[in-house]
Amino acid sequence: MATITDVARVAGVSKNTVSRFLNERGYISQQTRKKIQDAIDLLHYQPNQIARSLFTNKTNMVGLVIPDVSQPFFATMTSKIEDELDRRGYKMILCNTMHSSSKERKYLDMLTANKVDGIIIGSHSIDINYSGIKAPIVALDRFLSDTIPVVSADHAQGGLMAANAVLKRGCRNVAQFIGYSKVRTPSAKRHQVFAQQMHQSGIPCATYELRLNQFEFATYLKTVDDFLEENSNVDGVFASDLVALAIQRQALARGVRIPDDLFIFGYDGSFVSQIAYPALPTIVQPFEELAKTLADVLVREINGEQVEKLSYTLPVKESDGYVESALSSKADLFMPFPF
Amino acid sequence: MATITDVARVAGVSKNTVSRFLNERGYISQQTRKKIQDAIDLLHYQPNQIARSLFTNKTNMVGLVIPDVSQPFFATMTSKIEDELDRRGYKMILCNTMHSSSKERKYLDMLTANKVDGIIIGSHSIDINYSGIKAPIVALDRFLSDTIPVVSADHAQGGLMAANAVLKRGCRNVAQFIGYSKVRTPSAKRHQVFAQQMHQSGIPCATYELRLNQFEFATYLKTVDDFLEENSNVDGVFASDLVALAIQRQALARGVRIPDDLFIFGYDGSFVSQIAYPALPTIVQPFEELAKTLADVLVREINGEQVEKLSYTLPVKESDGYVESALSSKADLFMPFPF
Repeated sequence: MATITDVARVAGVSKNTVSRFLNERGYISQQTRKKIQDAIDLLHYQPNQIARSLFTNKTNMVGLVIPDVSQPFFATMTSKIEDELDRRGYKMILCNTMHSSSKERKYLDMLTANKVDGIIIGSHSIDINYSGIKAPIVALDRFLSDTIPVVSADHAQGGLMAANAVLKRGCRNVAQFIGYSKVRTPSAKRHQVFAQQMHQSGIPCATYELRLNQFEFATYLKTVDDFLEENSNVDGVFASDLVALAIQRQALARGVRIPDDLFIFGYDGSFVSQIAYPALPTIVQPFEELAKTLADVLVREINGEQVEKLSYTLPVKESDGYVESALSSKADLFMPFPF
Repeated sequence: MATITDVARVAGVSKNTVSRFLNERGYISQQTRKKIQDAIDLLHYQPNQIARSLFTNKTNMVGLVIPDVSQPFFATMTSKIEDELDRRGYKMILCNTMHSSSKERKYLDMLTANKVDGIIIGSHSIDINYSGIKAPIVALDRFLSDTIPVVSADHAQGGLMAANAVLKRGCRNVAQFIGYSKVRTPSAKRHQVFAQQMHQSGIPCATYELRLNQFEFATYLKTVDDFLEENSNVDGVFASDLVALAIQRQALARGVRIPDDLFIFGYDGSFVSQIAYPALPTIVQPFEELAKTLADVLVREINGEQVEKLSYTLPVKESDGYVESALSSKADLFMPFPF
């Protein structure tokens, strides 16, 4: 492992100069800076981060607190957020809370104990009070307090698109599935808008609530099978992709024709929505733009800059479920392999 | 934020005693220990981790380096690994490399710079030489060097189960899809065993290789559609779940009957395999046991204990694709919700 002495030797400068460079103290010429940086890159030199942190009081670590990374919406968001934080020089500590308030609280404690510079929170334990917390926090799709910025997709727009698709299809008897209603989230808006649109068009729409921590697909399969058993008259459904996919599978198993007998419309648009056949029309959340905005807002908070808005709402897209690959030539894809 | 003075006051002991407790120095009675711990819990006191790290030279951070967390196998593993590390008092820093050697190298540099206590590596940039690295590392499903322990599912067993299912079904013309063959991984074994079994039974079996970083589902859809176009005589396929699901979707879109015309057998067994209808038979990897073993081996390495084995191979299970939910009562699941 390279030391500061190695860097000084390769750069042809004194150890003291390298130390001043690393701690951003005193004047160092542009030429010398370049020599030192080249030596650091060549040697893969890493200053002792622990000692440096004590000096700068920064860890360059950000906590990401979400219910469960195995869920495709959060898996896709996590992948994009890690990428955006990495570009900005931050490492990401991942915490799956499954809405456990003790685990969520542990991360808040880490923040106040200078173990992380900031937190992105996509879960919300309903028994944690976030008001009054002044540390760098940004929320993904959650209302935490009056002072914590929220980044989310434009769920009102998404709900309207879904309603228009269901109405255009001519559904006469509709149901929608929503998340646990005690979690305060902008995403509830899509279901309010959807219900309003159905109401205005005189189409009956029943709303079903999923319980907290309901992320197991096997559980969805059971839930929706009971639903289908008792609601054979429903001809249109609006639900997040995983629930929609569970409905589709169980409906097909019952001999229901999709979309002729039952029109299913999803929400989220991660890759799992593309697994379905017949294709699942869905609303695609702007994963990359959400991740970029979360990282931008958090880094501004960490740097002590003013964050001008408390709410960042990003447009969604509608997908018919048929996804074109960016790749066109099969020669790029695979080749016969001899064993 | 609570200080060491607050803890001392609440516990009714001196600051010096609390300090000795935190730094594990000198004798402190069981009774006093309990008082201090109760005060710490009550006040949500967090010792300044940066200062403590300098003292103990430990960060209690572990790096998890994988190709991409949005992929369901890695998403499920990441969720379980985070849980197992949390139980053992470690936070997890997540790094998606997409096989980028520079990002993978950055984490190795962090390890040598004491920024993390150990690393779990599930990706493998083919141009990084791991031999000679003595730091705490454990590999998930990858051969990195002669001294780094590898934890993986029993892929030989999985390949045999898949072969038996395909043979039992009576397939006469079989294809299998494998990952990028230059990545040295125990999972290649399943395809070797599968090919051997086909050969021994006199069933032709073509093997196709997916390119490195091939994780986009939309790309799979295009790839397998080209495959189906040119191989309408194939009546049995063995592939990881995502590829298998892509084949199923595109085959259904072409009017191929599943499993009558084409028998598709998957591998991995994360929840996505349960989305398919008709059900996708698959091999289920032991996600939880893999995560437990990875965490156990790594923590032993971090603590300087002897790790007796270099290879940990855990049994797989076969699934017919029909998954029973643990939940039985629909009353637990959802309820009509008034808007």
